[in-house]
Amino acid sequence: MTRGYGTVYLVGAGPGDPELLTVRAHRLIGQADVVLHDSLVGERIVSEVPPATATVTNVGKRPDTDRRWRQAEINRYMVRKAETEETVVRLKGGDPTVFGRGGEEAEYLAENDVPFEFVPGVTSAIAAPEVAGIPVTHRECASSLTVVTGHEDPTKETSRLDWDAIADTVAAGGTLVVLMGVSRLPENVRLLRERGLEDETPVAVVEKATTPDESVTIATLETVVERTREADVEPPATVVVGAVVKRRQSVLTALGESPLRSPIETREAVSFSAR
Amino acid sequence: MTRGYGTVYLVGAGPGDPELLTVRAHRLIGQADVVLHDSLVGERIVSEVPPATATVTNVGKRPDTDRRWRQAEINRYMVRKAETEETVVRLKGGDPTVFGRGGEEAEYLAENDVPFEFVPGVTSAIAAPEVAGIPVTHRECASSLTVVTGHEDPTKETSRLDWDAIADTVAAGGTLVVLMGVSRLPENVRLLRERGLEDETPVAVVEKATTPDESVTIATLETVVERTREADVEPPATVVVGAVVKRRQSVLTALGESPLRSPIETREAVSFSAR
Repeated sequence: MTRGYGTVYLVGAGPGDPELLTVRAHRLIGQADVVLHDSLVGERIVSEVPPATATVTNVGKRPDTDRRWRQAEINRYMVRKAETEETVVRLKGGDPTVFGRGGEEAEYLAENDVPFEFVPGVTSAIAAPEVAGIPVTHRECASSLTVVTGHEDPTKETSRLDWDAIADTVAAGGTLVVLMGVSRLPENVRLLRERGLEDETPVAVVEKATTPDESVTIATLETVVERTREADVEPPATVVVGAVVKRRQSVLTALGESPLRSPIETREAVSFSAR
Repeated sequence: MTRGYGTVYLVGAGPGDPELLTVRAHRLIGQADVVLHDSLVGERIVSEVPPATATVTNVGKRPDTDRRWRQAEINRYMVRKAETEETVVRLKGGDPTVFGRGGEEAEYLAENDVPFEFVPGVTSAIAAPEVAGIPVTHRECASSLTVVTGHEDPTKETSRLDWDAIADTVAAGGTLVVLMGVSRLPENVRLLRERGLEDETPVAVVEKATTPDESVTIATLETVVERTREADVEPPATVVVGAVVKRRQSVLTALGESPLRSPIETREAVSFSAR
């Protein structure tokens, strides 16, 4: 059995807006003795939902050297903290098992007999298009959703992605979402066009979704690289490819009319700027 | 502009566990004047998170006739309620835009000048595998996630899904998740095998994920139809196909050791029953 360790919670922090934390994530952050978070989403979450008494560590980037923690360092740190603390929260943007290395961290904890639990979160793959007015599936035009990351593991000799198959699912009326999709956008767009997707295939790029700086760029496979350059789109951004992007026009008509304020102001900005 | 309507919130209710509601969904349910929910997840949510003063209507099934509401009836009801009430919550299992007709309902509201807002939720496509110990992506063995529904629109003349492409993404090391995947499991398994996926491809079926009745069946493409029949698996269930299913063994070692109780009891039951 375990040697009296505390529990490590691998917690999804959602896309950025603290109100899109789950009730469970919110409660665990409040109860935590230790919180380890990434730079991207975690920074905002822990500043807006401050843990009552926890030690908070940004494992995304070291403040002194600006160097990222290595994965092995994060793993060992989690185990060390679980030796002395009861509740260790490992906070990850989106959902911990969607390109978040949550699976690897869970395996490391398991190997070291440290009890852990996954706490699912709202993934940007769905939420980023959604708050921009794009439903990732639609009865009339999208029967599948495929999610990949723009940051493929650089240690892989070749990409494991079958871009032919991915292009085919989009051609058949599916939606493709590329998380962290900005830095390799030109390369990914080239791959999709080479594999037969039409130049006119609609593409949306949702930048900093569910934060006050959210913005949306609407384009096509032919124009999206230029458009995002013009719009100076910065990471993190979610790229959406497929017919659902066109649905935005009909969906947006009424978006942004809510009597509540935050975070709808964000969406107003988005919807009105895009009309 | 709008004619003084209230706002309709198209709210994701998550996979079933009320603690996996977002903070925002939880707050909106509390503030709602009217809640319209489906049978599947909504029933449990509104019983465990009772709205303070709202009129609650199950639009999944009529109590008198056991007949489901037609989509057009739901649409008209939402608009009618928004004429007199300030906050109308349309609660949908998982995320409202993932096979939930949220996009269609949004379009109808937009056409009728009713202000609305999407509130993203935790999708079962990711959460169901996750709480069963299966990360849908993994750096070493799953670079893509494809989500489809087992309930394809019966009014479509032919399926819009490109099963060749879907099988190829799995063969290349991707994960396939079929939501509501039980009733058409034999047909879908046949399609995947015909398109070249190996008999030994791992498959998991997660039944009633994140509820007290959660259970997991682990099998292969060859055996899964028989296994789910033996295990008497009932909807709703999430089917996971791909190498990540094998990761469950290493992830599970430590699952279920948490000092907290609910909803971890559920997961204990799952993890221990599957060893």
